[in-house]
Amino acid sequence: MPHGYNGKILRVDLSSGKLVTEEPPENFYRQYFGGEGFISYFLLKELPKGVEPLSPANKLIFAAGPLTGVPAGGCGRHSVGGKSPLTRGYGEADSGGYWGAELKMAGFDAIIVEGKAEKPVYLFIKDGEAQIKDARHLWGMKALECQNAIREELADPNIKVAQIGPGGENLVRFACVMNDLDAAAGRTGMGAVMGSKNLKAVACRGHQRVSLADPQAVKDIARWIKENTPITLKGMRDFGTARLIPTLNNAGGLPTRNFQLGSIEGADKVSGQAMADTILVNRRACFACSVQCKREVKVDEPYVVDPSYGGPEYETIAALGTDCGITDLKAIAKGNELVNAYGLDSISCGATIAFAMECFENGLLTKKDTGGIDLRFGNASAMLQMVEQIALRQGFGDTLAEGVARVSKKIGPAAEEFAMHIKGQELPMHEPRWKQGMGVGFSISPTGADHCHNMHDSVYTEMTPSLEMLQGMGILEPMPLNDLSSAKVRLLKYYSEFIHFLNCAVCCYFVMSLALVGLDRITQLVRSVTGWDTTFFELLKVGERSANLARVFNVREGFATKDDDMPQRFFAPHGSGPLKVALDPEAFHKAKEIYYNMMGWPNGAPSSDKLGELGIEWALPLLQTK
Amino acid sequence: MPHGYNGKILRVDLSSGKLVTEEPPENFYRQYFGGEGFISYFLLKELPKGVEPLSPANKLIFAAGPLTGVPAGGCGRHSVGGKSPLTRGYGEADSGGYWGAELKMAGFDAIIVEGKAEKPVYLFIKDGEAQIKDARHLWGMKALECQNAIREELADPNIKVAQIGPGGENLVRFACVMNDLDAAAGRTGMGAVMGSKNLKAVACRGHQRVSLADPQAVKDIARWIKENTPITLKGMRDFGTARLIPTLNNAGGLPTRNFQLGSIEGADKVSGQAMADTILVNRRACFACSVQCKREVKVDEPYVVDPSYGGPEYETIAALGTDCGITDLKAIAKGNELVNAYGLDSISCGATIAFAMECFENGLLTKKDTGGIDLRFGNASAMLQMVEQIALRQGFGDTLAEGVARVSKKIGPAAEEFAMHIKGQELPMHEPRWKQGMGVGFSISPTGADHCHNMHDSVYTEMTPSLEMLQGMGILEPMPLNDLSSAKVRLLKYYSEFIHFLNCAVCCYFVMSLALVGLDRITQLVRSVTGWDTTFFELLKVGERSANLARVFNVREGFATKDDDMPQRFFAPHGSGPLKVALDPEAFHKAKEIYYNMMGWPNGAPSSDKLGELGIEWALPLLQTK
Repeated sequence: MPHGYNGKILRVDLSSGKLVTEEPPENFYRQYFGGEGFISYFLLKELPKGVEPLSPANKLIFAAGPLTGVPAGGCGRHSVGGKSPLTRGYGEADSGGYWGAELKMAGFDAIIVEGKAEKPVYLFIKDGEAQIKDARHLWGMKALECQNAIREELADPNIKVAQIGPGGENLVRFACVMNDLDAAAGRTGMGAVMGSKNLKAVACRGHQRVSLADPQAVKDIARWIKENTPITLKGMRDFGTARLIPTLNNAGGLPTRNFQLGSIEGADKVSGQAMADTILVNRRACFACSVQCKREVKVDEPYVVDPSYGGPEYETIAALGTDCGITDLKAIAKGNELVNAYGLDSISCGATIAFAMECFENGLLTKKDTGGIDLRFGNASAMLQMVEQIALRQGFGDTLAEGVARVSKKIGPAAEEFAMHIKGQELPMHEPRWKQGMGVGFSISPTGADHCHNMHDSVYTEMTPSLEMLQGMGILEPMPLNDLSSAKVRLLKYYSEFIHFLNCAVCCYFVMSLALVGLDRITQLVRSVTGWDTTFFELLKVGERSANLARVFNVREGFATKDDDMPQRFFAPHGSGPLKVALDPEAFHKAKEIYYNMMGWPNGAPSSDKLGELGIEWALPLLQTK
Repeated sequence: MPHGYNGKILRVDLSSGKLVTEEPPENFYRQYFGGEGFISYFLLKELPKGVEPLSPANKLIFAAGPLTGVPAGGCGRHSVGGKSPLTRGYGEADSGGYWGAELKMAGFDAIIVEGKAEKPVYLFIKDGEAQIKDARHLWGMKALECQNAIREELADPNIKVAQIGPGGENLVRFACVMNDLDAAAGRTGMGAVMGSKNLKAVACRGHQRVSLADPQAVKDIARWIKENTPITLKGMRDFGTARLIPTLNNAGGLPTRNFQLGSIEGADKVSGQAMADTILVNRRACFACSVQCKREVKVDEPYVVDPSYGGPEYETIAALGTDCGITDLKAIAKGNELVNAYGLDSISCGATIAFAMECFENGLLTKKDTGGIDLRFGNASAMLQMVEQIALRQGFGDTLAEGVARVSKKIGPAAEEFAMHIKGQELPMHEPRWKQGMGVGFSISPTGADHCHNMHDSVYTEMTPSLEMLQGMGILEPMPLNDLSSAKVRLLKYYSEFIHFLNCAVCCYFVMSLALVGLDRITQLVRSVTGWDTTFFELLKVGERSANLARVFNVREGFATKDDDMPQRFFAPHGSGPLKVALDPEAFHKAKEIYYNMMGWPNGAPSSDKLGELGIEWALPLLQTK
């Protein structure tokens, strides 16, 4: 067994209560790596075509990677995946915090959860042993309450808990899997899958450090990261992910009023800088990381916001804030507390409310529909009410809990125009008219609109240190934001394969990319952890392999190139504001064609020889059963 | 300007006598790198379609790379290229020795020779200055004589000379460019191109060491190579490239009697071991290398063999020896002296004689044709006579100087069956029925049958250290010799891109691959030399880029997939001997199709999006002018 892994995957059948430990061969680990790579492998191999996402036949996979739990900055992440109840395709989300590292130290690389428990249960994993435990008394609890209860009954305050809140219990389609109270595997509705299995939580406790092939080399790299990230990620530490809100707002790249606009008056009031000046009480970090990009906020009035749940990140501020026309930081902080406590993806939740607000303002919804709530842009208390109603499936929240794709279909064609989603997943808070390559990335991402296998055009418009880093992939020249030439598509392909790899490793995009750790140092880190004589080429191929498996999964489920779409809104410019350009439909569709060709995806599906090149010929018959 | 380069390319117009120094931008160097990368770039950009290879419109390019001249083992190589008079396609050959390092130390990265001198000339490059000098007195000289004359008239015994012999002067289509008397840029007839330009030699002398970004890191790697190659390449040192002759013979993989057989009685008499026991007087190394895989032999009777010209390598022993049915080591040593003195590619020369022998034995040629020579397999003195006649275009040699493709056409259809060539270039001494993936590589190589952008199946049939090294490319499992599945094609694709890269670097395949220096250490060497924050991914893309440029060149010149062929002989097994298998036509053609698809070459030509991915969209219009 290579270093960096436990060599053990736990398989849990909740229907029968059976727990099995599997020990895959070394080459399984080297090809599929971990995280997203494990998830795409197991989902494709094990799920029959057409499984209902919220049925016992779906599987929920928690997966660490070789870097998870390694004592170095950026190594505190894990992935959660299954077939998505939001997109009915490949579902996966990644999360930071401490839980993933604890899973590794508890002796497992991944957990595959199958079937459905008769009654609510939770899983307890400690030092190589796993038990299914009664969770009936935990059902209905919010995250803090549940975490406290588990720690208390197991008499260990250091237990790490990944869990669903009432959102997941109630099968909100964009419910997330929370861990450590302030970290979310947010996207694609994995919390609903967990809820459908009557699985309330997975509690981990371990004492076995991750085995390292060359501990001294790992230590040296960890020291480099520790010494350099305070410089390279100073803004991230000081102001968190929301540090760029003023920049975005000035450029017209800040999603506002359901993506009708790209800037908003009062944006400065919700920036990371404003937060630091007002409600921030602490900065938080993930396992082994000194960056501290996470926030902790405290508010006493007009809302009481519990610092236990951290503080809002950029995506949350934009989704529950500006995209809903709201610039009240305290209200957003309260919203953040609620989505974390209830276990909802803040992006999809905010985007769904923003969508409903636009419907409301256009008369497609009325107070009759909303139970009297004046669901207008800018109405912070309406937003907060809706978050709670969605999680509890109360009132109009029961409708919105289905996400914008389904709700817009229900309201009718006029509403579909306002539905900012791709493949059923709501857009994250990045303006595709501004970052146009990322827009192409949204349309072809396996999880629908998602920034988590994607690139940010704005970082590469001049010879920045970030672009210098990509020279190690042969990307030598800067490109404009709205360039959609083959050079931009190449950047998208290479960079998103890099991110797919990071999601397999599993490690942090901020540290491993933004902090300029460098492609060679990342390679050396993997070498030092695993002992594999690997290269960055092999690592990118890991990412490409995983991206292809996820694509095959979606093609088998019936997705076609027409589903790699983009809401019409983005082909017209903002009505006002600094950003004057829109996506050009011709350039956009041409870029997708270039992407398919570069990927070896004729007609959007991986060719047999692309699968062969990646050593996954076994996926070909699955592709052909579509 | 990056370290590792001079930043200067010398352009010489022999028609006008004009010398120009060009200074390309850094990104030119980073994308095209050197050696093969420069050659494929300049040939495609600068040669109009359909140029006559032996006309003044062809260009001859001498190119070093960033590793050429770096003080580390394996770094004493350069490339020579132009449109091939043998294939009428992309032509290029690489050579070891000292000349390439001297070119770098003399201040240039490459020389582009254009036009044709009125009278024989040579080029003298010293410490950044270049002159065209009269060579009328050198014309007709053999290599040693010419080198001595140049050193004498320039009064510097340390001048390094690359030159043609009478073979190149007489436009033998497989004439080579010799350097340092015992090293040849052998294949594709670059000596004839040089001869057609009336350019006898390029003499270099330089005192400027190659600039290194991190001299200490380079030193450390050089020390590693120096300490480890005596172990990893012990057999190569002790017995040279001919060390494997007994193994090949036992397996039926030793080309014998024009590839009719794969083994020969008396093979042991021509092995590297036999040479060491008999005629070997010294071992030689290239610049900065301690491997000493090159030989120096001395024979006094029945032939006098001058040790100045080194000794025969494997390819020469098989081509002039076993493939001609000859196992007389002294005769082969004499043949080696002759091809080096006259400047002929020993492979094509031997293969052409072997072809003629088969024609002779089958009555397609008679003594009337051969001027009385009894051109039968096993007749060593006939072989030696033919080598001399070919170089001097005397007697029947004038016919054979055209190479097997042209001679077989002249003799007629019955002879074509015996013509072991692809695209006009004679097969090197590797049996494609034995190494079947290499056979596919022969058929798709840009230079026709060539082992210099290729892989050797025999190294990967079990978990060897060589295969372990390739795990860093994601090649994890061994494969049988005759496997032609997508796994084998992937190996061919990745590995030949690696070799294409080594030809761009320019450095030695033996040291950088066989000696197990390792993919990461090679990457670190490039990083330490150039200062570029590169990865193995970028380096493989350099190789892929160069392979694609060469392919575009050939497609523009009219080559199509039908030209990626294989002599029919190889689809039937040997008449006798240990090797029982042949190439299976269906598997072979399927493997080529897989290869095209993996390369992004629909219908055999690079797609616009493959060119885009490699950042060479500029080549697309050239492709379309076909």
